Amino acid sequence: MVSPISYKLPVYEFLESEKIDRIIEVSSRILAEIGIEFLDEECLEILRSNGVTVEGKLAFFPPELVEHYMASAPSEFTQLARNPSHNLKIGGDQMVFAPVYGPPFVCDFERGRRHSTLEDFDNFVKLAHMSPYIHHSGGTVVEPNDLPVSTRHLDMILSHVIYSDKAFMGSVTSAENAADTVAMAEIVFGAEAVRQNPAVISLINVNSPRRYDERMLGALKTYARARQAVIITPFILAGAMSPVTLPGTIAQQNAEALAGIVLTQMISPGTPVVYGSFLTNINLRSGSPAFGTPESQLALYVSAQIARRYKLPFRGGGMLCASKIPDAQAGYESMIVMSPAIMAGTNFILHAAGWLEGGLAAGYEKFVLDCGVLGMFHRWSEGMEVNEDTLAYSSIAEVEPGGHHLGTEHTFAHFRDAFHETEVFDDKAFEMWEADGALDAYARANGYVKESLDEFELPELDESIHEELMDFVARRKEIIPKTTADD
Amino acid sequence: MVSPISYKLPVYEFLESEKIDRIIEVSSRILAEIGIEFLDEECLEILRSNGVTVEGKLAFFPPELVEHYMASAPSEFTQLARNPSHNLKIGGDQMVFAPVYGPPFVCDFERGRRHSTLEDFDNFVKLAHMSPYIHHSGGTVVEPNDLPVSTRHLDMILSHVIYSDKAFMGSVTSAENAADTVAMAEIVFGAEAVRQNPAVISLINVNSPRRYDERMLGALKTYARARQAVIITPFILAGAMSPVTLPGTIAQQNAEALAGIVLTQMISPGTPVVYGSFLTNINLRSGSPAFGTPESQLALYVSAQIARRYKLPFRGGGMLCASKIPDAQAGYESMIVMSPAIMAGTNFILHAAGWLEGGLAAGYEKFVLDCGVLGMFHRWSEGMEVNEDTLAYSSIAEVEPGGHHLGTEHTFAHFRDAFHETEVFDDKAFEMWEADGALDAYARANGYVKESLDEFELPELDESIHEELMDFVARRKEIIPKTTADD
Repeated sequence: MVSPISYKLPVYEFLESEKIDRIIEVSSRILAEIGIEFLDEECLEILRSNGVTVEGKLAFFPPELVEHYMASAPSEFTQLARNPSHNLKIGGDQMVFAPVYGPPFVCDFERGRRHSTLEDFDNFVKLAHMSPYIHHSGGTVVEPNDLPVSTRHLDMILSHVIYSDKAFMGSVTSAENAADTVAMAEIVFGAEAVRQNPAVISLINVNSPRRYDERMLGALKTYARARQAVIITPFILAGAMSPVTLPGTIAQQNAEALAGIVLTQMISPGTPVVYGSFLTNINLRSGSPAFGTPESQLALYVSAQIARRYKLPFRGGGMLCASKIPDAQAGYESMIVMSPAIMAGTNFILHAAGWLEGGLAAGYEKFVLDCGVLGMFHRWSEGMEVNEDTLAYSSIAEVEPGGHHLGTEHTFAHFRDAFHETEVFDDKAFEMWEADGALDAYARANGYVKESLDEFELPELDESIHEELMDFVARRKEIIPKTTADD
Repeated sequence: MVSPISYKLPVYEFLESEKIDRIIEVSSRILAEIGIEFLDEECLEILRSNGVTVEGKLAFFPPELVEHYMASAPSEFTQLARNPSHNLKIGGDQMVFAPVYGPPFVCDFERGRRHSTLEDFDNFVKLAHMSPYIHHSGGTVVEPNDLPVSTRHLDMILSHVIYSDKAFMGSVTSAENAADTVAMAEIVFGAEAVRQNPAVISLINVNSPRRYDERMLGALKTYARARQAVIITPFILAGAMSPVTLPGTIAQQNAEALAGIVLTQMISPGTPVVYGSFLTNINLRSGSPAFGTPESQLALYVSAQIARRYKLPFRGGGMLCASKIPDAQAGYESMIVMSPAIMAGTNFILHAAGWLEGGLAAGYEKFVLDCGVLGMFHRWSEGMEVNEDTLAYSSIAEVEPGGHHLGTEHTFAHFRDAFHETEVFDDKAFEMWEADGALDAYARANGYVKESLDEFELPELDESIHEELMDFVARRKEIIPKTTADD
């Protein structure tokens, strides 16, 4: 049973309200005076006809217009899963964890790093299906490099539907692929149901600075018209795609996100949309993207505060790291990004498990280790109940000075669920750990990966839906010209 | 130049004020009705003569009395360092990081785990001296197992004074050893100076539940009479030394801490004292202490909130983990404890670097990796300045859509200090990392440890002070009967 976190704890308000105001003012000026580029004629026409000033491919947004259209985006919505008990509320105090997205490589303890395949894709979908701490099946969990580029989106959706009964993400590689996604969702959920509540949520990245490209706009139009949810995310490595200073970077991010959100609402008012942030910085000496930086942590809090201003669901964070393998660096860095994501009350956390190497690789062992930590955050989010029972006065009175509480009635009453235990973490005595082979977390997690995949059971799927999907995919594969990554 | 963090960011207030009230009420009842045990006749006499009800070895504290004596403990104070530029303000918005304390073992990449020696002790003092992110030389950074037990406190203080010019901690193994510590501090700083401001800060642990033992009370009396600072810390593994529920555990911790703080103020009103918390839970299946648990994280926030109620400096947190080596688990766990310690505005963070294996081992590589992360927290604590320059409007206007900011004037003006870089972390491309030997963080950190120790330079020390200290130690060693750990 999937249960996303209902986050009732105080949310960390990092920046004073007046400073948020100033950042938003600069966003408004960027939107009105500097403009956002849209590389799609139809989108420019939609913007123009709704009151945006268009010059060439640049769109200039009057502040009142932005305010008007922002107001029509819902502050929360429900994404359907094919197992209704896994339907997900997105927004409000809900916190949804989804797997890593997009890596062309996989990494595991035994075989190291290699190009990912459909088999890897299926495996990560299975691992996400099995983890109680991953609520969403995600999207391109890894690139299935062994399949033709032009049709692999069909196989990916098929994999999500077959190997998981959790909600999933749609293809954004073109308008046509988005349409295939919607068609397949209609087969699974029914055409009427997916108009009431979105059955897919899809990741629309901004090509920062200030550009929406053809492919993303094609997908955006398709999904908005089908009333499927989108996550509008400026993809920003500060110092390269934005200024090196965070307030300017966040102002730019906000302008970019708003431009896309406004467009979705012009196409179809009420389209469910998530305010996304993917913001870290480059290493200015090497030019490499850096992850788990203090700057990305600061930016995350402020981005979440701004999203709350617009009363929109917020996407940010993840177990991000630059490390190539799940070593100590990966652990530190992942937590440096993930802790603020939780404390900021983030609603949708993509890359919540499996991310390695700046997103270039999905790690099998990293995935299960991250899931262990996500379990801890579930416990953390339960907070602390203060009542007569938990205050345990009589139990304190009962144990003599220097004594112990192991045998008290109170301990017996609570010991089953008193403390959260993380199976993938080791707290054995040194001698036992040594006798077990002195394995580090990476090596130990390898065992958990194998066990999990061995124990996988196919979730039930209506035979007729399965067949209809297979037919659809077969038909589409006949029509779509095959291209490979080398074409 | 050591510069502890001045934490100007909002502090995370986790629990509602009324719930804190309820926990404190239970503490008052524990103090008044259940009592705290003091295994020292003189202390019992001091308590009795100041209005505490004593029955046998149990002391019962009336609430008004507690309130009265708590009020005389200063809310902040300055600890002297022999290099005055390293003097440390403790309390207020200051955040001081000190090394791991107490491990009988060390662990390094090449030699693995072994009993620690004076050479290891000296090495950790040197590493702490050299790190800009460690502000304090600490105390028993590792046990020098190769020295006689009865005199090793003398060698440890000597090591702190010779290999570092940062502030250090005193011996708490007996009243006599505490007196030696004070005598040596008087040699270094002058007898008058150490009465004005404490020259040592020492760790008085409560033998929870509800017991202060002879050794700790001996040290406490000596330090309070010499007006040296003490950190009163209940040592609690919830489920063993306290109830399995956190509110009861925290109520007990508070009662224990208050009892000791009140005693210091009865002995010498105005004695600088830090409210300490060392609180995690056991694994109820195995009985092992667990570190980096969500429960310990929740408890840390509430403990800090309670310390703030009393307007006392707070000690808590650290880079704690159960892991035996600096692997992914160590990274995750350390951050799970350290992030809340920062967000809670903790004033004194012992074990901020080097901790492994539940505190049984000090790791050389763990130390330098932790220091890297401490550097990130220094950057994090600077927060975000929002002004015209950082909002960078004209720089955003200058870069075309899809372009980059690498060459802008704004980037040039800021690139030196725009982003914090952590030397021990790797963000190189996979191919370069592979060409460099595909080393994990543990292996890479080994190189940094060696480099650091090679580059160590002895801080200047007045020759006469050095001689006087050596004489003192020699004289004391003649007098003190030698005992070893096996005696």
